[in-house]
Amino acid sequence: MITLDLTLPDTRYPIHIGHGLLDQVELILPHLRIPQVAIITNDVVAPLYLQRLTQQLEKHGVRTIPVVLPDGEEHKNWQTLNLIFDALLAANAERKTTLIALGGGVIGDMTGFAAACYQRGAPFIQIPTTLLAQVDSSVGGKTAINHPLGKNMIGAFYQPQLVVADMDLLATLPERELSAGIAEIIKYGLLGDIDFLGWLEANMDKLRARDPVALQYAVRRSCEMKAEIVGQDEKEQGVRALLNLGHTFGHAIEAGLGYGKWLHGEAVGAGMVLAAAASQAMGWLTADDVARVQALIAAAGLPIRSPDFGAAEWLRHMGHDKKVESGVIRFVLLQQLGQAVIQPGLPATLLESLFHSPHIDPALARQ
Amino acid sequence: MITLDLTLPDTRYPIHIGHGLLDQVELILPHLRIPQVAIITNDVVAPLYLQRLTQQLEKHGVRTIPVVLPDGEEHKNWQTLNLIFDALLAANAERKTTLIALGGGVIGDMTGFAAACYQRGAPFIQIPTTLLAQVDSSVGGKTAINHPLGKNMIGAFYQPQLVVADMDLLATLPERELSAGIAEIIKYGLLGDIDFLGWLEANMDKLRARDPVALQYAVRRSCEMKAEIVGQDEKEQGVRALLNLGHTFGHAIEAGLGYGKWLHGEAVGAGMVLAAAASQAMGWLTADDVARVQALIAAAGLPIRSPDFGAAEWLRHMGHDKKVESGVIRFVLLQQLGQAVIQPGLPATLLESLFHSPHIDPALARQ
Ligand SMILES: NC(=O)c1ccc[n+]([C@@H]2O[C@H](COP(=O)([O-])OP(=O)(O)OC[C@H]3O[C@@H](n4cnc5c(N)ncnc54)[C@H](O)[C@@H]3O)[C@@H](O)[C@H]2O)c1
Ligand SMILES: NC(=O)c1ccc[n+]([C@@H]2O[C@H](COP(=O)([O-])OP(=O)(O)OC[C@H]3O[C@@H](n4cnc5c(N)ncnc54)[C@H](O)[C@@H]3O)[C@@H](O)[C@H]2O)c1
Ligand SMILES: [Zn+2]
Ligand SMILES: [Zn+2]
Repeated sequence: MITLDLTLPDTRYPIHIGHGLLDQVELILPHLRIPQVAIITNDVVAPLYLQRLTQQLEKHGVRTIPVVLPDGEEHKNWQTLNLIFDALLAANAERKTTLIALGGGVIGDMTGFAAACYQRGAPFIQIPTTLLAQVDSSVGGKTAINHPLGKNMIGAFYQPQLVVADMDLLATLPERELSAGIAEIIKYGLLGDIDFLGWLEANMDKLRARDPVALQYAVRRSCEMKAEIVGQDEKEQGVRALLNLGHTFGHAIEAGLGYGKWLHGEAVGAGMVLAAAASQAMGWLTADDVARVQALIAAAGLPIRSPDFGAAEWLRHMGHDKKVESGVIRFVLLQQLGQAVIQPGLPATLLESLFHSPHIDPALARQ
Repeated sequence: MITLDLTLPDTRYPIHIGHGLLDQVELILPHLRIPQVAIITNDVVAPLYLQRLTQQLEKHGVRTIPVVLPDGEEHKNWQTLNLIFDALLAANAERKTTLIALGGGVIGDMTGFAAACYQRGAPFIQIPTTLLAQVDSSVGGKTAINHPLGKNMIGAFYQPQLVVADMDLLATLPERELSAGIAEIIKYGLLGDIDFLGWLEANMDKLRARDPVALQYAVRRSCEMKAEIVGQDEKEQGVRALLNLGHTFGHAIEAGLGYGKWLHGEAVGAGMVLAAAASQAMGWLTADDVARVQALIAAAGLPIRSPDFGAAEWLRHMGHDKKVESGVIRFVLLQQLGQAVIQPGLPATLLESLFHSPHIDPALARQ
């Protein structure tokens, strides 16, 4: 196990990364304010891991309230969030009861937001069970639910007490979800670490084969980069926005297709290709750079061609993104591979040509 | 106009108290991050004051999004909150759009919570239009909505940029609402300022007649005390809990009767009588002290006799209160008049005798 520290102005917390951590409840116990937790999970993860966690905790005298939600991004909404509140209040959960998120990013985001709001703030712990959640959503304190008019529009910045990333839990993850997680890992290489990008190109096969050493290294490097960036800018007033590489496009894809059609990571994968193509159009990346990005994303088993909404639809969906300021969309582009920058606004002609996807090598596109 | 400052570890903001302030938009303009606001109000307050505020702002080039919600505590819930999000997203409101709460505590609490959650945090301004909101709910950053299983159970600590308390707006306030506001003013005297308690006894008639000088003094002294206490303990980990004097009982009354039957301030009025009676049972207040409390609350036009739920119901409703810790209800009682203390737990026999109201002089009870 290795442990990273995320240090913020008002708090700091450990991120444990390793194997067999789900059974090591001694990692969790010191963080509980009272011996009572609510374990928030879903009906896919619960049969796999809920009982193990519950038994370990109860063995140590911790009362557990299980809350099993329906699975899926389409349930990341107020109705489902309210099921958490219903369960907490029915069980007389207190302000000091700790909420534990046992699941992927959907469970993590909803649990974190529920914790932020329950009695104006209860403690919570992240036990991410998807690769995406381990390298991204469980770290950094962004929490949210979706609104019919926009993804993650309702939420809070609210930090967990602790993150426990157990590689073993990835054994049961569907292949498509694994790839979606790799999308966010590629993002870190692209936005800030060209060496890591090279490592990913060299080790993509191992990652997809779930080689434990490769996985742990990729999770660790990703969390290091995320912790460093979030440590500099918790509330996304500056550098943290770089973590949205591929996301303005990606969110538009998710919204345009309807949430849940493509996985978040898949949309981000195709979104990063668009970001690379836009960066080439700005004169920053070469055609070879863009091809390299496409090849890596394709090697991860991710789509590299975005749906064809037409420019008007694209703009409409991107206009609802949180990265809009005074009507100007703040794009994250690549000055070069391994160096992302914020670009407020892009010429309409550039965007239009982008959305007809001339930059994407059809041979590499999915299907 | 007088201006108080509320100073917190991470922020500080002004509280303006005076007459004719609604038309002085120059108080508001410097606090806007972009020239766009959403004015959140309800269908009672909108016909009275919305147009005036909108016109003043638009005259200065500020785009306004009006959001008129249904009136009433029974609408302080997720459904109504969602109407705010719907309107914000439909109008493409951004993270820097300022939400302005134009209304009583219900509008203020919901607007503050909506601002806390919208895109993980938009700025907001309080323009309280009830006496209760001016002396209590608009100051200090507690925001919330109700849940069927508990009042204010879902919310956030989230501070406004600015509070503008205009005494003139109280002219249209129904008498019963005026009294409800006075309940919270009496609370400040009881919990921390015996001189102010004396002033209230001497000036209750003036307050109820809406004497402008008396009102402004009462609002000012209340806000001073609230700002001082919140400044010491923003997140209610200690001294801020004293502001809940009368509220553990009061919330149980509101929940027991069903939200909206009694006004919040009325429930707090009767709740403070119970708190005084419990303090007498603890040997802290004299019978004369309790009579003095009852007389002042009655003089404010507030109920002094609580509904007779029976002890079991009382305990059930109080058990859902946020001031429960490890199963122990943390009561706020009076060591003496003008000095409140936290009392974790009370003997069952004391509570039972309390709920049969032997301490309340029937001659003073309402009806
Ligand atoms: N908060 C942030 O900073 C942040 C960052 C990135 C993404 N997100 C959010 O994360 C969400 C996506 O997260 P996700 O990709 O983890 O999706 P997810 O939570 O829906 O999980 C994907 C699927 O895998 C299942 N699953 C989870 N763990 C499993 C396991 N160990 N074995 C088998 N199946 C398992 C889930 O039940 C689900 O069906 C999106 O809502 C996105 O907005 C948030
Ligand atoms: N956040 C806090 O710290 C805090 C503190 C105390 C109370 N509260 C909350 O505040 C709420 C009660 O606030 P309230 O008493 O202001 O109730 P309210 O907001 O319901 O207002 C009372 C009534 O007066 C009407 N009204 C408002 N201004 C008016 C005006 N100028 N002229 C005529 N009518 C007017 C309203 O429409 C409503 O019908 C409760 O929900 C309570 O939980 C919050
Ligand atoms: Zn992402
Ligand atoms: Zn109150």
